[in-house]
Amino acid sequence: MALGEFDLIERYFAQIGASPSVRIGVGDDAAVLELPAGHAHLISTDTAVSGVHFLPDASPSVIAYRTIMAAASDLAAMGAKPEGMLLALTLPEANPDWLAAFAEGVRAASEQATLPLIGGDTTRGPLTVTVTVLGSAPTGCYLTRGGAKPGDRLCVSGTLGDAAAGLFLLGGADTSISSADAAFLQGRFSQPTPRLALGQTLRGVATAAIDVSDGLLADAAHLARLSSVGLTIDPGAIPISAALRAYPDPAQAREWALRGGDDYELLFTLPDHAVLPDDCTEIGQVSAGSGVHCDGVTHMTGYDHFEN
Amino acid sequence: MALGEFDLIERYFAQIGASPSVRIGVGDDAAVLELPAGHAHLISTDTAVSGVHFLPDASPSVIAYRTIMAAASDLAAMGAKPEGMLLALTLPEANPDWLAAFAEGVRAASEQATLPLIGGDTTRGPLTVTVTVLGSAPTGCYLTRGGAKPGDRLCVSGTLGDAAAGLFLLGGADTSISSADAAFLQGRFSQPTPRLALGQTLRGVATAAIDVSDGLLADAAHLARLSSVGLTIDPGAIPISAALRAYPDPAQAREWALRGGDDYELLFTLPDHAVLPDDCTEIGQVSAGSGVHCDGVTHMTGYDHFEN
Repeated sequence: MALGEFDLIERYFAQIGASPSVRIGVGDDAAVLELPAGHAHLISTDTAVSGVHFLPDASPSVIAYRTIMAAASDLAAMGAKPEGMLLALTLPEANPDWLAAFAEGVRAASEQATLPLIGGDTTRGPLTVTVTVLGSAPTGCYLTRGGAKPGDRLCVSGTLGDAAAGLFLLGGADTSISSADAAFLQGRFSQPTPRLALGQTLRGVATAAIDVSDGLLADAAHLARLSSVGLTIDPGAIPISAALRAYPDPAQAREWALRGGDDYELLFTLPDHAVLPDDCTEIGQVSAGSGVHCDGVTHMTGYDHFEN
Repeated sequence: MALGEFDLIERYFAQIGASPSVRIGVGDDAAVLELPAGHAHLISTDTAVSGVHFLPDASPSVIAYRTIMAAASDLAAMGAKPEGMLLALTLPEANPDWLAAFAEGVRAASEQATLPLIGGDTTRGPLTVTVTVLGSAPTGCYLTRGGAKPGDRLCVSGTLGDAAAGLFLLGGADTSISSADAAFLQGRFSQPTPRLALGQTLRGVATAAIDVSDGLLADAAHLARLSSVGLTIDPGAIPISAALRAYPDPAQAREWALRGGDDYELLFTLPDHAVLPDDCTEIGQVSAGSGVHCDGVTHMTGYDHFEN
């Protein structure tokens, strides 16, 4: 009996990662997770579509890695510990080379984010990847977008704008920047690092959190809306990497830092007394009111998936 | 400020269903579920692609209903109690009429399967629906495909072949069957009923279970492989509805019952002493060996998503 293509696909995705919480992984009607007593499950899903979220000829490994890390970043934003993921993969054809490279990206992301692959579905159709991630947190002890209070400080991890710059540089040669800086920025786009450890550290400390996936202004607007507060951002305080500072067009660099997405840093609010964690920067304040105030302009809306 | 299309979509899917386990639903970075102590989480994901799993002009309500029920059926097959679902919806455009009808299907399925909508993602691209379902079961007490033992009886719920016949009849007028019978069969395709109550009843009773989504022979082959046993099916014992019995081509009706998918009945194995639940039929036996033996032929493989 010849091996069907579906069996072939199953083989690529068998045994990626492991965790003591996983009782049943890939292969039955459903996966089974058992958490220690007193823990809640957190779950989020993210879709990436060919031609919308990535180019049709993008590296399969990068498609897999980025989609998984983007989903894992939602767990980071809630302060959850990663427990497992499901992969719904729609493919126009079963190309072994493409699948091997994609599986390599899944494996690398699984290892980096400690997210074992516990289930999924493979279907035929236009290339689309949907990743569902599961995490855990002590009952009642997770971060939300909704707890910021007037008087809190607005903070962000890492640096902003790198991924947008990296995406731009991936689109064509820009000789006005050193190859080392270009490689750094491109890596920030292709291999994002969700702030999973920071998210767990912020549990019980930060009053609200969100990950910067749509861009600083847009995600700040989500946080402001869910917390029913206003946010003021000091543009001069926004952390910019040395590589992005070296970019010859400072206005463009600043625009990427304010509006570029895909950095997967954490934007969070800290009460006055709380210590700012390492590698984080205070960039503004929480006030009564609404919207995000920056450079004399108030931003109210978030990202619209049908307007980009 | 004009309401963005994304806000419009959010509005359609806000507040569908509710459950005491859901601490945070749609709207934050992740949903949060808390189960009573001593319970495991079960999770499964299913994708339906336009042009592959449904016609591009199919009723949006039916697309939503069937995709959710197909996913819920995986919970039924594990004996899980439904707790919530996430909906990843990829749409070429935000058409309000289409969205309203789709949301109606989501709402009806949510109610029927007691699956509140707790999260999701909306993206632009070729029409694709991925539903992730979460359920619960007492720790260590759920059904799998892997526990059938030689000497067990092979049983199935309801009747088989109805959905395949219904799909065929939906494709064009077939005047050789009464309109009442046609309506019954079409309804079995368009509005499948996952056997959620039966699945929970079978916990601790059945030795193995799977839902009949790919067709009796294919799903029996999955169960045989995961249980490392052989299965013998008595074709004369397969339960056929009165509507399907009335179909003028008995060979075709029998073929639908053996190979037609989408019935979402439960196929399960019972130890010798166990009482057969209501509305279920014994259709064969479990033996040492491998494969599915029916009508003198042995079937080894399952469904191949790239061969259909």
